[in-house]
Amino acid sequence: MTSKENPNNCKALHSDTESATLSHVRVVLVHTSHPGNIGAAARAMWTMGLSQLVLVSPSRFPAPEARAMASGADEVLDRARRVTTLAEALTGCVWAAGFSARPRAFAGRVLTARQMAGEAVQQLAAVSPSSKNIALVFGTEMSGLSNAELAQCTVAATIPANPRYSSLNLAAAVQVAAYELRVAVGAGAVWQAPRFAGATVDEIERLYAHAEATLIACGFLNPERPKRLLPRLRRLFARAGLEREEVNILRGILAEIDALLETTKSGDRKEINSGK
Amino acid sequence: MTSKENPNNCKALHSDTESATLSHVRVVLVHTSHPGNIGAAARAMWTMGLSQLVLVSPSRFPAPEARAMASGADEVLDRARRVTTLAEALTGCVWAAGFSARPRAFAGRVLTARQMAGEAVQQLAAVSPSSKNIALVFGTEMSGLSNAELAQCTVAATIPANPRYSSLNLAAAVQVAAYELRVAVGAGAVWQAPRFAGATVDEIERLYAHAEATLIACGFLNPERPKRLLPRLRRLFARAGLEREEVNILRGILAEIDALLETTKSGDRKEINSGK
Repeated sequence: MTSKENPNNCKALHSDTESATLSHVRVVLVHTSHPGNIGAAARAMWTMGLSQLVLVSPSRFPAPEARAMASGADEVLDRARRVTTLAEALTGCVWAAGFSARPRAFAGRVLTARQMAGEAVQQLAAVSPSSKNIALVFGTEMSGLSNAELAQCTVAATIPANPRYSSLNLAAAVQVAAYELRVAVGAGAVWQAPRFAGATVDEIERLYAHAEATLIACGFLNPERPKRLLPRLRRLFARAGLEREEVNILRGILAEIDALLETTKSGDRKEINSGK
Repeated sequence: MTSKENPNNCKALHSDTESATLSHVRVVLVHTSHPGNIGAAARAMWTMGLSQLVLVSPSRFPAPEARAMASGADEVLDRARRVTTLAEALTGCVWAAGFSARPRAFAGRVLTARQMAGEAVQQLAAVSPSSKNIALVFGTEMSGLSNAELAQCTVAATIPANPRYSSLNLAAAVQVAAYELRVAVGAGAVWQAPRFAGATVDEIERLYAHAEATLIACGFLNPERPKRLLPRLRRLFARAGLEREEVNILRGILAEIDALLETTKSGDRKEINSGK
Protein backbone atom coordinates (compact mmCIF):
# COMPACT_ATOMS: atom_id res chain seq x y z
CA MET A 1 0.00 0.00 0.00
CA THR A 2 1.51 3.33 -1.00
CA SER A 3 1.22 6.55 0.96
CA LYS A 4 -1.08 7.91 -1.74
CA GLU A 5 -3.57 5.15 -1.14
CA ASN A 6 -3.75 5.75 2.59
CA PRO A 7 -2.22 9.00 3.72
CA ASN A 8 -3.67 8.70 7.25
CA ASN A 9 -2.12 5.32 7.89
CA CYS A 10 1.18 6.47 6.53
CA LYS A 11 1.07 9.52 8.76
CA ALA A 12 0.57 7.26 11.76
CA LEU A 13 3.55 5.18 10.71
CA HIS A 14 6.12 7.90 10.22
CA SER A 15 4.07 10.58 11.63
CA ASP A 16 6.06 13.62 11.24
CA THR A 17 8.04 16.61 10.99
CA GLU A 18 10.84 14.36 12.27
CA SER A 19 11.02 12.28 9.12
CA ALA A 20 10.74 15.44 7.01
CA THR A 21 13.66 16.85 9.00
CA LEU A 22 15.73 13.70 8.57
CA SER A 23 15.18 13.84 4.80
CA HIS A 24 17.63 16.77 4.78
CA VAL A 25 20.47 14.60 6.06
CA ARG A 26 22.90 13.25 3.48
CA VAL A 27 25.21 10.36 4.32
CA VAL A 28 28.40 10.51 2.25
CA LEU A 29 30.66 7.45 2.00
CA VAL A 30 34.06 8.25 0.52
CA HIS A 31 36.01 5.63 -1.49
CA THR A 32 34.30 2.66 0.16
CA SER A 33 36.22 -0.55 -0.63
CA HIS A 34 33.61 -3.24 -0.02
CA PRO A 35 30.12 -3.04 -1.55
CA GLY A 36 28.79 -5.15 1.36
CA ASN A 37 29.62 -2.25 3.66
CA ILE A 38 27.62 0.12 1.44
CA GLY A 39 24.61 -2.17 1.81
CA ALA A 40 25.06 -2.52 5.58
CA ALA A 41 25.39 1.28 5.88
CA ALA A 42 22.18 1.73 3.85
CA ARG A 43 20.39 -0.62 6.24
CA ALA A 44 21.78 1.26 9.27
CA MET A 45 20.62 4.57 7.75
CA TRP A 46 17.15 3.39 6.94
CA THR A 47 16.56 1.91 10.42
CA MET A 48 17.02 5.47 11.69
CA GLY A 49 14.97 7.11 8.95
CA LEU A 50 17.83 8.47 6.80
CA SER A 51 17.51 7.88 3.06
CA GLN A 52 19.93 10.19 1.20
CA LEU A 53 23.06 8.22 0.36
CA VAL A 54 25.89 9.66 -1.75
CA LEU A 55 28.88 7.53 -2.74
CA VAL A 56 32.17 9.18 -3.68
CA SER A 57 34.00 6.88 -6.15
CA PRO A 58 33.14 3.56 -4.51
CA SER A 59 35.37 0.64 -5.57
CA ARG A 60 32.36 -1.29 -6.85
CA PHE A 61 28.68 -0.25 -6.95
CA PRO A 62 26.01 -1.36 -7.72
CA ALA A 63 26.93 -4.86 -6.55
CA PRO A 64 25.04 -7.94 -5.36
CA GLU A 65 26.84 -7.85 -1.97
CA ALA A 66 25.45 -4.36 -1.34
CA ARG A 67 21.95 -5.65 -2.14
CA ALA A 68 22.37 -8.65 0.18
CA MET A 69 23.59 -6.59 3.15
CA ALA A 70 20.96 -3.87 2.69
CA SER A 71 18.30 -6.40 3.69
CA GLY A 72 15.03 -4.45 3.51
CA ALA A 73 16.67 -1.08 2.81
CA ASP A 74 16.74 -1.46 -0.99
CA GLU A 75 15.10 1.87 -1.58
CA VAL A 76 18.09 3.66 -0.07
CA LEU A 77 20.40 1.87 -2.51
CA ASP A 78 18.01 2.53 -5.41
CA ARG A 79 18.16 6.25 -4.70
CA ALA A 80 21.92 6.38 -3.95
CA ARG A 81 23.89 8.89 -6.02
CA ARG A 82 27.40 8.19 -7.25
CA VAL A 83 29.80 11.12 -7.64
CA THR A 84 33.53 11.46 -8.22
CA THR A 85 34.64 14.00 -5.62
CA LEU A 86 33.77 14.88 -2.03
CA ALA A 87 33.25 18.51 -3.12
CA GLU A 88 30.53 17.31 -5.49
CA ALA A 89 28.95 15.20 -2.73
CA LEU A 90 28.81 18.23 -0.43
CA THR A 91 27.29 20.66 -2.94
CA GLY A 92 24.19 22.23 -1.38
CA CYS A 93 25.20 21.26 2.16
CA VAL A 94 25.43 24.09 4.72
CA TRP A 95 27.13 21.91 7.33
CA ALA A 96 29.11 18.69 7.22
CA ALA A 97 30.44 16.49 10.01
CA GLY A 98 33.44 14.37 9.04
CA PHE A 99 33.87 11.24 11.15
CA SER A 100 37.31 10.28 12.36
CA ALA A 101 38.36 7.84 15.06
CA ARG A 102 41.98 8.92 14.63
CA PRO A 103 43.45 12.00 16.33
CA ARG A 104 44.94 14.40 13.80
CA ALA A 105 45.35 18.06 12.97
CA PHE A 106 42.01 19.69 12.18
CA ALA A 107 41.29 23.40 12.03
CA GLY A 108 37.70 23.22 13.28
CA ARG A 109 36.01 21.83 16.36
CA VAL A 110 36.04 18.13 17.25
CA LEU A 111 32.68 16.94 18.60
CA THR A 112 31.51 13.69 20.15
CA ALA A 113 28.77 11.91 18.19
CA ARG A 114 26.23 13.26 20.68
CA GLN A 115 27.47 16.87 20.40
CA MET A 116 27.45 16.42 16.62
CA ALA A 117 23.78 15.39 16.77
CA GLY A 118 22.89 18.40 18.93
CA GLU A 119 24.55 20.78 16.50
CA ALA A 120 23.05 18.97 13.49
CA VAL A 121 19.56 19.55 14.92
CA GLN A 122 20.22 23.29 15.11
CA GLN A 123 21.44 23.26 11.51
CA LEU A 124 18.43 21.21 10.42
CA ALA A 125 16.07 23.71 11.98
CA ALA A 126 17.53 26.29 9.60
CA VAL A 127 17.68 24.15 6.43
CA SER A 128 14.44 22.20 6.80
CA PRO A 129 12.14 24.57 4.91
CA SER A 130 14.66 24.82 2.04
CA SER A 131 16.23 22.34 -0.32
CA LYS A 132 19.55 22.63 1.52
CA ASN A 133 21.11 19.70 3.34
CA ILE A 134 23.55 18.74 6.04
CA ALA A 135 25.97 15.83 5.67
CA LEU A 136 27.58 13.07 7.69
CA VAL A 137 30.82 12.04 5.97
CA PHE A 138 32.63 8.70 6.41
CA GLY A 139 35.99 7.65 4.93
CA THR A 140 37.36 4.31 3.78
CA GLU A 141 37.22 1.14 5.87
CA MET A 142 40.99 0.97 6.27
CA SER A 143 42.11 4.51 6.92
CA GLY A 144 39.05 6.75 7.24
CA LEU A 145 39.01 10.26 5.77
CA SER A 146 42.23 11.89 4.61
CA ASN A 147 43.25 15.18 6.24
CA ALA A 148 42.34 17.01 3.03
CA GLU A 149 38.87 15.41 3.01
CA LEU A 150 38.27 16.17 6.69
CA ALA A 151 39.31 19.79 6.07
CA GLN A 152 36.30 20.13 3.72
CA CYS A 153 33.94 19.39 6.63
CA THR A 154 32.56 22.01 9.02
CA VAL A 155 33.28 19.94 12.13
CA ALA A 156 35.03 16.68 12.93
CA ALA A 157 32.96 14.11 14.80
CA THR A 158 34.11 11.07 16.68
CA ILE A 159 32.49 8.13 18.43
CA PRO A 160 33.83 7.45 21.92
CA ALA A 161 35.50 4.03 21.82
CA ASN A 162 37.81 1.64 23.59
CA PRO A 163 41.28 3.18 23.30
CA ARG A 164 42.70 -0.34 22.86
CA TYR A 165 40.41 -1.09 19.92
CA SER A 166 38.57 1.83 18.42
CA SER A 167 37.93 0.28 15.02
CA LEU A 168 34.18 0.42 14.47
CA ASN A 169 32.96 -1.27 11.33
CA LEU A 170 31.90 1.37 8.73
CA ALA A 171 28.19 0.46 8.96
CA ALA A 172 28.43 0.38 12.78
CA ALA A 173 29.75 3.96 12.78
CA VAL A 174 26.94 5.03 10.44
CA GLN A 175 24.48 3.25 12.77
CA VAL A 176 25.66 5.10 15.88
CA ALA A 177 25.76 8.49 14.12
CA ALA A 178 22.29 8.02 12.60
CA TYR A 179 20.92 6.77 15.92
CA GLU A 180 22.22 9.84 17.74
CA LEU A 181 20.67 12.04 15.08
CA ARG A 182 17.30 10.28 15.31
CA VAL A 183 17.21 10.65 19.10
CA ALA A 184 18.33 14.30 18.86
CA VAL A 185 15.58 15.31 16.41
CA GLY A 186 13.06 13.97 18.89
CA ALA A 187 12.09 10.81 17.04
CA GLY A 188 13.18 8.64 19.96
CA ALA A 189 9.74 7.34 20.89
CA VAL A 190 9.57 3.60 21.51
CA TRP A 191 6.94 0.93 22.09
CA GLN A 192 5.35 0.49 25.50
CA ALA A 193 3.76 -2.65 26.88
CA PRO A 194 0.04 -2.37 27.68
CA ARG A 195 -0.62 -1.21 31.22
CA PHE A 196 -3.60 -2.05 33.44
CA ALA A 197 -5.65 0.21 35.71
CA GLY A 198 -3.79 1.26 38.84
CA ALA A 199 -5.40 0.65 42.24
CA THR A 200 -6.71 3.66 44.15
CA VAL A 201 -5.14 4.75 47.42
CA ASP A 202 -8.18 3.56 49.41
CA GLU A 203 -8.14 0.14 47.73
CA ILE A 204 -4.50 -0.20 48.67
CA GLU A 205 -5.13 0.90 52.26
CA ARG A 206 -7.90 -1.72 52.57
CA LEU A 207 -5.38 -4.30 51.32
CA TYR A 208 -2.88 -3.33 54.05
CA ALA A 209 -5.63 -3.43 56.74
CA HIS A 210 -6.68 -6.86 55.51
CA ALA A 211 -3.06 -8.07 55.41
CA GLU A 212 -2.41 -6.83 58.93
CA ALA A 213 -5.51 -8.58 60.31
CA THR A 214 -4.73 -11.87 58.56
CA LEU A 215 -1.03 -11.87 59.47
CA ILE A 216 -1.95 -11.32 63.12
CA ALA A 217 -4.65 -14.03 62.98
CA CYS A 218 -2.23 -16.60 61.53
CA GLY A 219 0.46 -15.70 64.04
CA PHE A 220 3.08 -14.36 61.60
CA LEU A 221 2.72 -10.82 62.98
CA ASN A 222 2.85 -10.20 66.73
CA PRO A 223 0.91 -6.96 67.41
CA GLU A 224 2.92 -6.49 70.62
CA ARG A 225 6.20 -6.58 68.66
CA PRO A 226 5.32 -5.77 65.03
CA LYS A 227 8.93 -4.82 64.10
CA ARG A 228 9.20 -3.47 60.54
CA LEU A 229 7.03 -6.05 58.79
CA LEU A 230 4.19 -3.78 57.63
CA PRO A 231 6.44 -0.87 56.56
CA ARG A 232 8.55 -3.35 54.55
CA LEU A 233 5.47 -4.67 52.79
CA ARG A 234 4.33 -1.11 52.06
CA ARG A 235 7.78 -0.31 50.66
CA LEU A 236 7.76 -3.35 48.38
CA PHE A 237 4.28 -2.73 46.97
CA ALA A 238 4.78 1.03 46.66
CA ARG A 239 7.83 0.37 44.51
CA ALA A 240 5.89 -2.00 42.30
CA GLY A 241 2.94 0.38 41.88
CA LEU A 242 -0.06 -1.88 42.46
CA GLU A 243 -2.69 -2.43 39.80
CA ARG A 244 -6.33 -2.98 40.78
CA GLU A 245 -6.26 -6.57 39.56
CA GLU A 246 -3.18 -7.26 41.66
CA VAL A 247 -4.88 -5.88 44.80
CA ASN A 248 -7.74 -8.28 44.07
CA ILE A 249 -5.35 -11.22 43.71
CA LEU A 250 -3.54 -10.39 46.98
CA ARG A 251 -6.84 -9.97 48.84
CA GLY A 252 -7.98 -13.29 47.36
CA ILE A 253 -4.90 -14.97 48.83
CA LEU A 254 -5.54 -13.29 52.20
CA ALA A 255 -9.18 -14.44 52.10
CA GLU A 256 -7.96 -17.98 51.42
CA ILE A 257 -5.73 -17.82 54.52
CA ASP A 258 -8.70 -16.41 56.49
CA ALA A 259 -10.83 -19.39 55.37
CA LEU A 260 -8.09 -21.85 56.34
CA LEU A 261 -7.82 -20.24 59.77
CA GLU A 262 -11.61 -20.47 60.14
CA THR A 263 -11.55 -24.17 59.24
CA THR A 264 -8.70 -24.83 61.65
CA LYS A 265 -10.50 -22.97 64.45
CA SER A 266 -13.79 -24.78 63.87
CA GLY A 267 -11.80 -28.04 63.70
CA ASP A 268 -10.29 -27.08 67.05
CA ARG A 269 -13.77 -26.36 68.35
CA LYS A 270 -15.01 -29.68 67.03
CA GLU A 271 -12.07 -31.38 68.67
CA ILE A 272 -12.85 -29.54 71.89
CA ASN A 273 -16.54 -30.31 71.55
CA SER A 274 -15.87 -33.96 70.82
CA GLY A 275 -13.88 -33.99 74.07
CA LYS A 276 -10.56 -35.14 72.51
CA MET B 1 54.10 -5.18 24.18
CA THR B 2 52.02 -6.66 26.97
CA SER B 3 50.57 -4.75 29.88
CA LYS B 4 53.08 -6.45 32.20
CA GLU B 5 55.99 -5.00 30.24
CA ASN B 6 54.68 -1.46 30.49
CA PRO B 7 51.95 -0.99 33.06
CA ASN B 8 52.13 2.82 32.83
CA ASN B 9 51.51 2.86 29.14
CA CYS B 10 48.66 0.41 29.51
CA LYS B 11 47.14 2.56 32.22
CA ALA B 12 47.27 5.52 29.88
CA LEU B 13 45.54 3.48 27.20
CA HIS B 14 42.56 2.19 29.12
CA SER B 15 43.07 4.24 32.14
CA ASP B 16 40.37 3.37 34.41
CA THR B 17 37.65 2.64 36.71
CA GLU B 18 35.50 2.84 33.56
CA SER B 19 36.97 -0.27 31.99
CA ALA B 20 36.81 -2.06 35.35
CA THR B 21 33.13 -1.08 35.52
CA LEU B 22 32.45 -2.29 31.98
CA SER B 23 34.04 -5.67 32.80
CA HIS B 24 30.88 -6.39 34.83
CA VAL B 25 28.67 -6.19 31.74
CA ARG B 26 27.73 -9.48 30.10
CA VAL B 27 26.36 -9.54 26.56
CA VAL B 28 24.08 -12.55 26.03
CA LEU B 29 23.16 -13.64 22.51
CA VAL B 30 20.29 -16.13 22.44
CA HIS B 31 20.02 -18.77 19.68
CA THR B 32 22.05 -16.77 17.15
CA SER B 33 21.63 -18.25 13.66
CA HIS B 34 24.66 -16.90 11.82
CA PRO B 35 28.19 -17.18 13.28
CA GLY B 36 29.19 -14.07 11.28
CA ASN B 37 26.81 -12.07 13.44
CA ILE B 38 28.48 -13.42 16.60
CA GLY B 39 31.81 -12.16 15.28
CA ALA B 40 30.39 -8.77 14.30
CA ALA B 41 28.75 -8.47 17.73
CA ALA B 42 32.08 -9.29 19.41
CA ARG B 43 33.73 -6.51 17.40
CA ALA B 44 30.95 -4.07 18.33
CA MET B 45 31.34 -4.99 22.02
CA TRP B 46 35.09 -4.65 22.05
CA THR B 47 35.05 -1.21 20.35
CA MET B 48 33.07 -0.04 23.39
CA GLY B 49 35.20 -1.92 25.94
CA LEU B 50 32.84 -4.84 26.67
CA SER B 51 34.45 -8.27 26.72
CA GLN B 52 32.08 -10.75 28.44
CA LEU B 53 30.19 -12.65 25.74
CA VAL B 54 27.81 -15.53 26.56
CA LEU B 55 26.16 -17.53 23.78
CA VAL B 56 22.95 -19.44 24.48
CA SER B 57 22.82 -22.45 22.11
CA PRO B 58 24.19 -20.73 18.99
CA SER B 59 23.49 -22.58 15.73
CA ARG B 60 27.21 -22.85 15.01
CA PHE B 61 30.18 -21.71 17.10
CA PRO B 62 33.17 -21.59 16.96
CA ALA B 63 33.15 -20.91 13.23
CA PRO B 64 35.51 -19.27 10.73
CA GLU B 65 32.83 -16.67 9.79
CA ALA B 66 32.76 -15.48 13.42
CA ARG B 67 36.53 -15.12 13.36
CA ALA B 68 36.45 -13.18 10.07
CA MET B 69 33.78 -10.72 11.23
CA ALA B 70 35.36 -10.18 14.66
CA SER B 71 38.27 -8.44 12.93
CA GLY B 72 40.60 -7.46 15.80
CA ALA B 73 38.25 -8.56 18.58
CA ASP B 74 39.45 -12.16 18.73
CA GLU B 75 40.01 -12.07 22.47
CA VAL B 76 36.28 -11.55 23.02
CA LEU B 77 35.54 -14.70 20.97
CA ASP B 78 38.33 -16.63 22.72
CA ARG B 79 36.76 -15.87 26.09
CA ALA B 80 33.13 -16.40 24.97
CA ARG B 81 31.16 -18.92 27.03
CA ARG B 82 28.62 -21.25 25.48
CA VAL B 83 25.62 -22.33 27.58
CA THR B 84 22.35 -24.09 26.85
CA THR B 85 19.73 -21.92 28.56
CA LEU B 86 19.12 -18.21 29.14
CA ALA B 87 18.72 -18.94 32.88
CA GLU B 88 22.26 -20.32 32.90
CA ALA B 89 23.55 -17.27 31.00
CA LEU B 90 21.97 -14.94 33.56
CA THR B 91 23.29 -16.73 36.67
CA GLY B 92 25.07 -14.17 38.86
CA CYS B 93 23.41 -11.19 37.15
CA VAL B 94 21.50 -8.76 39.38
CA TRP B 95 19.90 -6.94 36.45
CA ALA B 96 19.24 -7.81 32.83
CA ALA B 97 17.94 -5.71 29.96
CA GLY B 98 16.24 -7.70 27.20
CA PHE B 99 16.26 -5.96 23.82
CA SER B 100 13.15 -5.98 21.70
CA ALA B 101 12.18 -3.87 18.71
CA ARG B 102 8.73 -5.43 18.68
CA PRO B 103 5.87 -4.21 20.91
CA ARG B 104 4.52 -7.00 23.10
CA ALA B 105 3.18 -7.78 26.55
CA PHE B 106 5.88 -7.36 29.19
CA ALA B 107 5.34 -7.12 32.94
CA GLY B 108 8.22 -4.77 33.67
CA ARG B 109 9.27 -1.37 32.42
CA VAL B 110 10.19 -0.67 28.81
CA LEU B 111 13.19 1.67 28.49
CA THR B 112 14.85 3.41 25.58
CA ALA B 113 18.48 2.39 25.01
CA ARG B 114 19.53 5.64 26.70
CA GLN B 115 17.33 5.10 29.74
CA MET B 116 18.64 1.52 29.88
CA ALA B 117 22.21 2.84 29.99
CA GLY B 118 21.36 5.29 32.79
CA GLU B 119 19.82 2.52 34.87
CA ALA B 120 22.68 0.13 34.04
CA VAL B 121 25.16 2.65 35.44
CA GLN B 122 23.29 2.73 38.75
CA GLN B 123 23.29 -1.07 38.85
CA LEU B 124 27.00 -1.18 37.98
CA ALA B 125 27.81 1.19 40.84
CA ALA B 126 26.36 -1.47 43.15
CA VAL B 127 27.90 -4.58 41.56
CA SER B 128 31.33 -3.23 40.64
CA PRO B 129 33.17 -4.17 43.83
CA SER B 130 31.69 -7.72 43.71
CA SER B 131 31.84 -10.54 41.22
CA LYS B 132 28.21 -9.89 40.23
CA ASN B 133 27.23 -8.78 36.74
CA ILE B 134 24.55 -7.09 34.73
CA ALA B 135 23.47 -8.35 31.31
CA LEU B 136 22.33 -7.06 27.93
CA VAL B 137 20.28 -9.79 26.22
CA PHE B 138 19.64 -10.09 22.47
CA GLY B 139 17.45 -12.64 20.67
CA THR B 140 17.68 -14.30 17.28
CA GLU B 141 18.20 -12.41 14.03
CA MET B 142 14.78 -13.28 12.67
CA SER B 143 12.41 -12.92 15.60
CA GLY B 144 14.31 -11.53 18.58
CA LEU B 145 13.62 -12.76 22.10
CA SER B 146 10.55 -14.87 22.84
CA ASN B 147 8.06 -13.54 25.39
CA ALA B 148 9.24 -16.20 27.86
CA GLU B 149 12.88 -15.13 27.39
CA LEU B 150 12.05 -11.43 27.77
CA ALA B 151 10.12 -12.24 30.95
CA GLN B 152 13.40 -13.45 32.52
CA CYS B 153 14.87 -9.94 32.12
CA THR B 154 14.51 -7.14 34.66
CA VAL B 155 13.62 -4.53 32.06
CA ALA B 156 12.89 -4.47 28.35
CA ALA B 157 15.04 -2.10 26.29
CA THR B 158 14.43 -0.82 22.81
CA ILE B 159 16.33 1.26 20.29
CA PRO B 160 14.31 4.09 18.74
CA ALA B 161 13.96 3.33 15.04
CA ASN B 162 12.17 4.15 11.82
CA PRO B 163 8.63 2.78 12.29
CA ARG B 164 8.67 1.77 8.60
CA TYR B 165 11.85 -0.27 8.99
CA SER B 166 12.98 -0.99 12.52
CA SER B 167 15.10 -4.04 11.72
CA LEU B 168 18.57 -3.30 13.05
CA ASN B 169 21.16 -5.93 12.27
CA LEU B 170 22.03 -7.92 15.45
CA ALA B 171 25.56 -6.51 15.69
CA ALA B 172 24.23 -2.99 14.99
CA ALA B 173 21.87 -3.31 17.97
CA VAL B 174 24.74 -4.55 20.16
CA GLN B 175 26.81 -1.58 18.89
CA VAL B 176 24.20 1.02 19.85
CA ALA B 177 23.54 -0.56 23.27
CA ALA B 178 27.25 -0.87 24.08
CA TYR B 179 27.89 2.68 22.84
CA GLU B 180 25.16 4.08 25.11
CA LEU B 181 26.62 2.16 28.01
CA ARG B 182 30.14 3.44 27.34
CA VAL B 183 28.95 7.05 27.18
CA ALA B 184 26.82 6.58 30.32
CA VAL B 185 29.68 5.22 32.45
CA GLY B 186 31.62 8.35 31.60
CA ALA B 187 34.10 6.81 29.18
CA GLY B 188 32.96 9.11 26.38
CA ALA B 189 36.18 11.10 26.06
CA VAL B 190 37.37 11.61 22.49
CA TRP B 191 40.43 12.93 20.69
CA GLN B 192 41.01 16.64 20.26
CA ALA B 193 43.04 18.34 17.57
CA PRO B 194 46.10 20.27 18.82
CA ARG B 195 45.34 23.91 19.56
CA PHE B 196 47.70 26.89 19.27
CA ALA B 197 48.20 29.82 21.65
CA GLY B 198 45.31 32.26 21.62
CA ALA B 199 46.01 35.95 20.98
CA THR B 200 45.70 38.35 23.91
CA VAL B 201 43.04 41.05 24.00
CA ASP B 202 45.61 43.82 23.45
CA GLU B 203 47.15 42.00 20.46
CA ILE B 204 43.68 41.74 18.94
CA GLU B 205 42.93 45.43 19.62
CA ARG B 206 46.17 46.43 17.90
CA LEU B 207 45.08 44.32 14.92
CA TYR B 208 41.76 46.19 14.71
CA ALA B 209 43.51 49.58 15.01
CA HIS B 210 45.93 48.56 12.25
CA ALA B 211 43.07 47.28 10.07
CA GLU B 212 41.09 50.50 10.53
CA ALA B 213 44.08 52.68 9.55
CA THR B 214 44.94 50.58 6.51
CA LEU B 215 41.34 50.32 5.28
CA ILE B 216 40.99 54.09 5.53
CA ALA B 217 44.32 54.65 3.78
CA CYS B 218 43.39 52.37 0.88
CA GLY B 219 39.97 53.99 0.57
CA PHE B 220 37.84 50.93 1.42
CA LEU B 221 36.63 52.52 4.67
CA ASN B 222 35.26 56.08 4.66
CA PRO B 223 35.79 57.50 8.19
CA GLU B 224 32.92 59.97 7.55
CA ARG B 225 30.53 57.09 6.82
CA PRO B 226 32.05 53.94 8.38
CA LYS B 227 28.73 52.00 8.35
CA ARG B 228 29.03 48.57 10.08
CA LEU B 229 32.32 47.45 8.55
CA LEU B 230 34.49 47.36 11.69
CA PRO B 231 31.81 45.81 13.95
CA ARG B 232 31.24 43.10 11.28
CA LEU B 233 34.96 42.31 11.19
CA ARG B 234 35.05 42.16 15.00
CA ARG B 235 32.05 39.80 14.96
CA LEU B 236 33.69 37.47 12.45
CA PHE B 237 37.03 37.24 14.25
CA ALA B 238 35.46 36.99 17.70
CA ARG B 239 33.48 33.97 16.51
CA ALA B 240 36.62 32.34 15.18
CA GLY B 241 38.65 32.99 18.34
CA LEU B 242 41.94 34.38 17.00
CA GLU B 243 45.24 32.63 17.65
CA ARG B 244 48.44 34.69 18.03
CA GLU B 245 49.87 33.28 14.82
CA GLU B 246 46.72 34.28 12.94
CA VAL B 247 46.95 37.86 14.27
CA ASN B 248 50.52 37.93 12.94
CA ILE B 249 49.39 36.68 9.53
CA LEU B 250 46.60 39.27 9.29
CA ARG B 251 48.92 42.09 10.36
CA GLY B 252 51.44 40.86 7.78
CA ILE B 253 48.78 41.21 5.08
CA LEU B 254 47.88 44.70 6.34
CA ALA B 255 51.59 45.68 6.32
CA GLU B 256 51.82 44.47 2.72
CA ILE B 257 48.90 46.75 1.77
CA ASP B 258 50.57 49.60 3.68
CA ALA B 259 53.78 49.06 1.65
CA LEU B 260 51.83 49.00 -1.61
CA LEU B 261 50.12 52.26 -0.68
CA GLU B 262 53.52 53.77 0.16
CA THR B 263 54.92 52.71 -3.23
CA THR B 264 51.89 54.11 -5.03
CA LYS B 265 52.14 57.42 -3.14
CA SER B 266 55.89 57.80 -3.80
CA GLY B 267 55.14 56.90 -7.42
CA ASP B 268 52.56 59.67 -7.38
CA ARG B 269 55.10 62.03 -5.85
CA LYS B 270 57.67 61.08 -8.47
CA GLU B 271 55.07 61.63 -11.14
CA ILE B 272 54.28 65.03 -9.60
CA ASN B 273 58.00 65.87 -9.20
CA SER B 274 58.76 64.87 -12.76
CA GLY B 275 56.08 67.34 -13.75
CA LYS B 276 53.91 64.76 -15.57
